[in-house]
Amino acid sequence: MGFLKNKDLIGLADLEKEDIGLILQHAKSFREVLNRPIKKVPTLQGKTIANLFFENSTRTRISFELAQKRLSADSVNFAASSSSLKKGESFKDTVRNIEAMKIDCVVMRHPSPGAHIQLQNYIDSVIVNAGDGSHEHPTQGLLDIMSLLEVKKKLKGVKVAIVGDISHSRVARSNIHGFLKMGAKITLCGPPNLIPMDIRELGLDINCDINEVLSWAEAVNVLRIQRERQGTRNIPSVREYRGLYGVTKERIERLKKEIVIMHPGPINRGVEIDSDVVDSENAIVLDQVLTGVAVRMAVLYLLLGDKPQGL
Amino acid sequence: MGFLKNKDLIGLADLEKEDIGLILQHAKSFREVLNRPIKKVPTLQGKTIANLFFENSTRTRISFELAQKRLSADSVNFAASSSSLKKGESFKDTVRNIEAMKIDCVVMRHPSPGAHIQLQNYIDSVIVNAGDGSHEHPTQGLLDIMSLLEVKKKLKGVKVAIVGDISHSRVARSNIHGFLKMGAKITLCGPPNLIPMDIRELGLDINCDINEVLSWAEAVNVLRIQRERQGTRNIPSVREYRGLYGVTKERIERLKKEIVIMHPGPINRGVEIDSDVVDSENAIVLDQVLTGVAVRMAVLYLLLGDKPQGL
Amino acid sequence: MGFLKNKDLIGLADLEKEDIGLILQHAKSFREVLNRPIKKVPTLQGKTIANLFFENSTRTRISFELAQKRLSADSVNFAASSSSLKKGESFKDTVRNIEAMKIDCVVMRHPSPGAHIQLQNYIDSVIVNAGDGSHEHPTQGLLDIMSLLEVKKKLKGVKVAIVGDISHSRVARSNIHGFLKMGAKITLCGPPNLIPMDIRELGLDINCDINEVLSWAEAVNVLRIQRERQGTRNIPSVREYRGLYGVTKERIERLKKEIVIMHPGPINRGVEIDSDVVDSENAIVLDQVLTGVAVRMAVLYLLLGDKPQGL
Repeated sequence: MGFLKNKDLIGLADLEKEDIGLILQHAKSFREVLNRPIKKVPTLQGKTIANLFFENSTRTRISFELAQKRLSADSVNFAASSSSLKKGESFKDTVRNIEAMKIDCVVMRHPSPGAHIQLQNYIDSVIVNAGDGSHEHPTQGLLDIMSLLEVKKKLKGVKVAIVGDISHSRVARSNIHGFLKMGAKITLCGPPNLIPMDIRELGLDINCDINEVLSWAEAVNVLRIQRERQGTRNIPSVREYRGLYGVTKERIERLKKEIVIMHPGPINRGVEIDSDVVDSENAIVLDQVLTGVAVRMAVLYLLLGDKPQGL
Repeated sequence: MGFLKNKDLIGLADLEKEDIGLILQHAKSFREVLNRPIKKVPTLQGKTIANLFFENSTRTRISFELAQKRLSADSVNFAASSSSLKKGESFKDTVRNIEAMKIDCVVMRHPSPGAHIQLQNYIDSVIVNAGDGSHEHPTQGLLDIMSLLEVKKKLKGVKVAIVGDISHSRVARSNIHGFLKMGAKITLCGPPNLIPMDIRELGLDINCDINEVLSWAEAVNVLRIQRERQGTRNIPSVREYRGLYGVTKERIERLKKEIVIMHPGPINRGVEIDSDVVDSENAIVLDQVLTGVAVRMAVLYLLLGDKPQGL
Repeated sequence: MGFLKNKDLIGLADLEKEDIGLILQHAKSFREVLNRPIKKVPTLQGKTIANLFFENSTRTRISFELAQKRLSADSVNFAASSSSLKKGESFKDTVRNIEAMKIDCVVMRHPSPGAHIQLQNYIDSVIVNAGDGSHEHPTQGLLDIMSLLEVKKKLKGVKVAIVGDISHSRVARSNIHGFLKMGAKITLCGPPNLIPMDIRELGLDINCDINEVLSWAEAVNVLRIQRERQGTRNIPSVREYRGLYGVTKERIERLKKEIVIMHPGPINRGVEIDSDVVDSENAIVLDQVLTGVAVRMAVLYLLLGDKPQGL
């Protein structure tokens, strides 16, 4: 048993492959705990975790909260909307104040990419990134890796397509870094102006023909289309989008092969993906959700747990 | 000791009399626990309960939360206002996602009558109805039964009046089913257009003369008038309502007899009931509140607790 | 070991010096607990505390919540914004209902000065004031006393300046009562029309020249300027305020002496105090925050803990 090389989990870009392996290994044990009648271990008893959500989130917040409760940690929740930030207090003062109450770990979601790097300058507690703008969402990346690994048994050489608005997706970014580290092959597919140039240097393919991409892929991770961005300059209408990039029932049936369907949720049924596809046997969307709790337990344990004597 | 016949608690319409008896018996034990200095038992340790409130509620949510904490269950709260539903996710996807995190039980309040029947199609976890529109509020019905039973020692033949807007009241509906099953006699009283026809077939009386009803009754359950509905086509003004159906000090004093006063809260003092009546010795409003926590503990225990070996 | 003379903690005006000493003594022990890896004691297991916040607050609420969790108490949170008060229920009915669920203690913040006195008429549970309008904020007063005592080792004769809008500050009021009881000397400094007359009778000095006050003081407690009040009839603009009463870098450097800098937060950097002053070595702002959790643990323990046998 060992622990992670970094103090914090900011992104999969700077997480080493061995650390990913260690997290997956522990997540597997925790997922077994989640199948027991008593889904709780005393591992983090007496540790305090602050969940700072500067952006609304239901599923990620609940998933982290459940991971914390099942590790017997104490948690406090902070939502920006009801906070002192409204009274003009700076981000720095807010987080330093919360840490001063002897918090062991801060799980933070923030709309600004890189907010967690700034946070590292302000506090000494362990930091877990629960999403920072369009930058990274590392626990989502880890749960996607683990969920696909369960099905395919290996990731080396496995062909993964990521479909959607890549530019604005922290899920895409964490997936790209994570899957590439695990040896998978990646093809991105989406509106060309929504695929950032710098990402091409990471060693992946880009193909804007959804039919070709689906023919190639063994798994497809379908990104949520953020409707609030629809219809603006760069993004086609819902109908157009579905025509060009939608993972539709017709497209999947035409493949005449098995393909693993993933989606980080929340799903816009009938937009980026068809209902029949979400509800098909090849979709592992709900496994991803369960795996998410286990991965978050593993991350919190590996960052906060007491090191066994002798290490 | 035994357990309930149904997996879920959706309404008192489909709860058998023996099950009501079982719940009351356990609620009595739990109410004793609530009078101890340590008001907590380890019964549901390691179980996870999600409180999904698609409609605001303070007292019911707090009552359920306390019941859960005192059974040592872990709970997560979900309020619709801050949820993915806003992002266009369907009800089905939301609840299936939450269940996928290995939730043992969902306590749900929802504005649509019958929402819990729909929920049964989507998830396998235990479901407890915390109020669905104007349909049912079964734990309220159970606590009303238990509170009155404490005072009268029996319910068979006891005369119970329910006064107010019957049509829009889930409390009324759960009371009617519950009290009738326990053998009580019921008279409904309120604006005639707010007493649904189908309810008459259940075997109860309707009388729109509040004075006659109070003369007849041994107990009166006064429903909250929802001010937001006042003044609309079907409902008289506050002043008119009080004149016709108000449980006023004068009316109660004129009775020259003891009558048990119940109210599910929140109370509009001076509208459906006078302050002096609420604060009189015959009012058991605060007993109802305490009993509510005990009843909810009993329901959660009987639906979620481990069956003793040999059963 | 002993316990407090009053059932409730409403303000420092009616807390005896010996009780302050007892709280500080226990808070010291609890602060040691907060430095352990396991920051939790089983002291209040099975006790239930309701946090009723009729006014938004992040840091005070989180501080109380952490104190409760670290004492192993169960807590439920009630925020006025989502409550039955909106539905027209009276304050009295709301609090009596919550107490009826067998709450051991109510921690309440309320915008009306004296709300807790009213609350004492309605409920029997232990009451802790978490701030009532411009009246008192006793746990803030206690943490300020404890924080300064740590630095100066004694309070008798120590010169404390309180700077800002004294009239509207519950922090100022609790500080004045607390520090005077501990034998400190107090000088108030701020806009003359914002220093209430009646406070002068308590035996303290008033001096509107910030430079003179800082020269005199060994410690200065800088009150937050509430921007929403700026620019109204009685209060100067931000620029004017900073010129007349701001605890600026220049003013502190000119002193050529050590002076302890305190601030209850949230801080308006560059308004009532300069950033460099907040971040200087003499500022104990973050110690105050930590001490706050320990003081709240001590208060809750002394009001709710079981008396050892033989007392």
